[in-house]
Amino acid sequence: MEFKPALNHASDLPLYRQLYDQFAARIRSGELARGARLPATRELAGLLGLNRTTVAAAYELLESAGLIDGQVGRGSFVRGTSPAPVEGVDWAGLLERNEPAAPSGPAGGAGKDVIGFVMSRPSRELFPLDDFRASVEAVLARRDLADILQLGSPSGYEPLRRYLLEDARRQHLAGPGDDLIVTNGCQQALDLIGRVLLGPGDTVAVEDPIYTGLKSLMAGMGAQLAGIPLGPEGLDLAQLERVLERERPRLLVVTSNFQNPTGLTLPLAARLALLKAAGAAGVPVVESDPYGELRYRGEALPALKQLDANGGTVLVRSFSKVSFPGLRVGWALGPKPLIDRLRHAKEASDLHTDQLSQAVLLEFAESGRLEAHRARMLRAGAERLAATLEACREFLPEGTRWTEPEGGMNVWVRLPEPLDAGALLTRAQREGVAYLPGRYFAVSRLEPGALRLSFAGLPPEEIRKGVAILGRVVRSELDGSSQAFEPESAMV
Amino acid sequence: MEFKPALNHASDLPLYRQLYDQFAARIRSGELARGARLPATRELAGLLGLNRTTVAAAYELLESAGLIDGQVGRGSFVRGTSPAPVEGVDWAGLLERNEPAAPSGPAGGAGKDVIGFVMSRPSRELFPLDDFRASVEAVLARRDLADILQLGSPSGYEPLRRYLLEDARRQHLAGPGDDLIVTNGCQQALDLIGRVLLGPGDTVAVEDPIYTGLKSLMAGMGAQLAGIPLGPEGLDLAQLERVLERERPRLLVVTSNFQNPTGLTLPLAARLALLKAAGAAGVPVVESDPYGELRYRGEALPALKQLDANGGTVLVRSFSKVSFPGLRVGWALGPKPLIDRLRHAKEASDLHTDQLSQAVLLEFAESGRLEAHRARMLRAGAERLAATLEACREFLPEGTRWTEPEGGMNVWVRLPEPLDAGALLTRAQREGVAYLPGRYFAVSRLEPGALRLSFAGLPPEEIRKGVAILGRVVRSELDGSSQAFEPESAMV
Repeated sequence: MEFKPALNHASDLPLYRQLYDQFAARIRSGELARGARLPATRELAGLLGLNRTTVAAAYELLESAGLIDGQVGRGSFVRGTSPAPVEGVDWAGLLERNEPAAPSGPAGGAGKDVIGFVMSRPSRELFPLDDFRASVEAVLARRDLADILQLGSPSGYEPLRRYLLEDARRQHLAGPGDDLIVTNGCQQALDLIGRVLLGPGDTVAVEDPIYTGLKSLMAGMGAQLAGIPLGPEGLDLAQLERVLERERPRLLVVTSNFQNPTGLTLPLAARLALLKAAGAAGVPVVESDPYGELRYRGEALPALKQLDANGGTVLVRSFSKVSFPGLRVGWALGPKPLIDRLRHAKEASDLHTDQLSQAVLLEFAESGRLEAHRARMLRAGAERLAATLEACREFLPEGTRWTEPEGGMNVWVRLPEPLDAGALLTRAQREGVAYLPGRYFAVSRLEPGALRLSFAGLPPEEIRKGVAILGRVVRSELDGSSQAFEPESAMV
Repeated sequence: MEFKPALNHASDLPLYRQLYDQFAARIRSGELARGARLPATRELAGLLGLNRTTVAAAYELLESAGLIDGQVGRGSFVRGTSPAPVEGVDWAGLLERNEPAAPSGPAGGAGKDVIGFVMSRPSRELFPLDDFRASVEAVLARRDLADILQLGSPSGYEPLRRYLLEDARRQHLAGPGDDLIVTNGCQQALDLIGRVLLGPGDTVAVEDPIYTGLKSLMAGMGAQLAGIPLGPEGLDLAQLERVLERERPRLLVVTSNFQNPTGLTLPLAARLALLKAAGAAGVPVVESDPYGELRYRGEALPALKQLDANGGTVLVRSFSKVSFPGLRVGWALGPKPLIDRLRHAKEASDLHTDQLSQAVLLEFAESGRLEAHRARMLRAGAERLAATLEACREFLPEGTRWTEPEGGMNVWVRLPEPLDAGALLTRAQREGVAYLPGRYFAVSRLEPGALRLSFAGLPPEEIRKGVAILGRVVRSELDGSSQAFEPESAMV
């Protein structure tokens, strides 16, 4: 045997363990091949200056772990890791049962030289790093720093929780029967609400198209989605009432402002109608509002939570879109009995939300830095949205339609028939632009021509360049497809 | 009407919204009582110098929200929030179905002057605040700070993930088929594993007694627990084999080192036997190991993950117990197909773990500060454990038994029969000491006399004082109960 184990007598690790580790690693890597004979215990003990029982203990462990076979009188032989063990765990089989039906989203993103309209997230370049640093420094200087580092409460870091709740009261969002829990962003708030209210086979009414993260969350819970078509006037009321009556959903999840992927905002009349319908059916409304603070023009509308006199709405918000998505802090505001149960689910799920980031974001908000940053985000967002809409008008061929959001991060584009935005993507990426095709967001209404342009992460000149490329690709594809659809002249 | 709305003409909020908000708040608070008449729109418009349509819009909103009733020709009247609305969401009914069977843990803790052995967490006084601050400062100076603040990966902050994986490879914990995902502490790793592998009604084999957080997690998922009695020699093998054969569990969850609540460590033979039994049954083993780094004496044993040649084990670890529980960072290491699915579940659950804390803990570890802190934690822990065991010997009456852990944060005490540690708690708290009674940790084996002493958070002199009080309470209760159990002399 070429391999001589190197032992460290000063180590905390017992020598038999060191021996075992080194043999096991070499057997698993294949360096010691199947069938190879290990030195006799006496021989190896002599070679290494060890007690023979130390070597024997290591060999015993190797045998128990199924890595070698000891044959009385003949010695020990590498058994090797059998490619298909007779015993053991069938991971593929075990994982099959709970496999989510829907893919969790597109794999990969755009390449290096591709202008990516792919991610609905703020621009890295706009992060106010100095203000962030100043907020962290203030937290490091706090007298309760040790409390921030200690195990916390499932409800959230109490100073932040109180700040958010008081702010919600000032805005008339929170009534006397309401409570608030801090979560890891909006996503976890939705997750906890699902855990508390849903069981497998339950139906959840959602907008169609809908944010992919909600699709995969609900699929993972075994819930069925009932899509309600969403347009500029809001949810399709007739369809909503049909779903509420026939499918008896456990929840209605809606995005009140600048919905992802469409960018649409529910008009006031649609909010009132939706609350009336859900209230009559006794169905709770989850108002997801990650983008509400990013309104670039027009007037803010009252939240569903504010309009709902019956206490049937829970509002979900987050710091992520308006500040730093890498810090995972959001919250849910709703009736106390629900929030109590969310707190239990939160504790079971991950004990509590990270307290360092909660303290930093509280400081960022209380110091006025968040509001200053939001003002800059609103200016930048307005520019980027305007650049997107202008570029759509200038570069996209006739017959293309798109939404005209008043805020948020996304514009929804519908290419002229018979184009398929999914089929077009490979070519678009080759030409230098990437987006998400509509199918990722579809519930039951497939719109092959639809695609999402997430503009917030790109400077205006990039947006212009990207949409120009998209326009070129679409035009050339239209020319190609219109030829393909034209009857060949020889056939006339 | 006494109340005159105060409007801010400079606000972004439209005037009709301001009017609506102020009326709605006063109606909800009861300040404007049910039946009160609102001023006529013309009257209020004149009073406030507003356009009459502005007031009418506010009233319309109030009516839509169910807060007032408009009666043609008579005016508008406060409807009030009806105490039992005819329409609306029945939260109690909706929340009933998924209500967890088990309570999620004891409410409240010890009072102010009570020595609390209640929380299994490190001592706040031992946090190395300056080292923590230095680690944060280093992160703030990083050139990739903006990346840390940007949306991250469900797998974890890549530099930390790579660091942990390489460390696991060096320790021969990770084989070539393994992968690693960062989670919000051990608790979320267990949660994600449950989400991926369990369905309602599935059985999970666990130690009995078991950490309450696992009980409430599994209850929330609708899983059944099969308890395997745990003793100094490890899991009861006969019972484990019976459960594996008859109840066909989907998972076996075990704590390899210094288990919570017993403080027991699985001996090597028990590890091998357990792996053999689980492997033969094709049942995956979840090795939960939050305390393994806190060994105060004796030799470290190889992890189950290391001994398992069949790739049926997933190892779950965390920074929480050895550094700062308020930062929620742990990880799961296991076969790639499983980790892939955990990543999808993680993304659906909360997108990814907070990146600021991931970066800070990476810096804390890479700079050597974690290891220096661990050395201090080991010295303090050894002292505190020794103080606990000594105090048990000195102060607890004959017939009391307790475990003698070699690390971790907990000692398991069994009071002599017929004492009930739960019934004793009120008196103990009155006398100045608090603990968790055994019933919080019981799966199916009730041990009324058992209680958990979590010693890590208390300095040695407090430990001594606390156990002395406990001893006094137990003795006096024993005297009382032995009298009560003696036959009355008149009856002989």
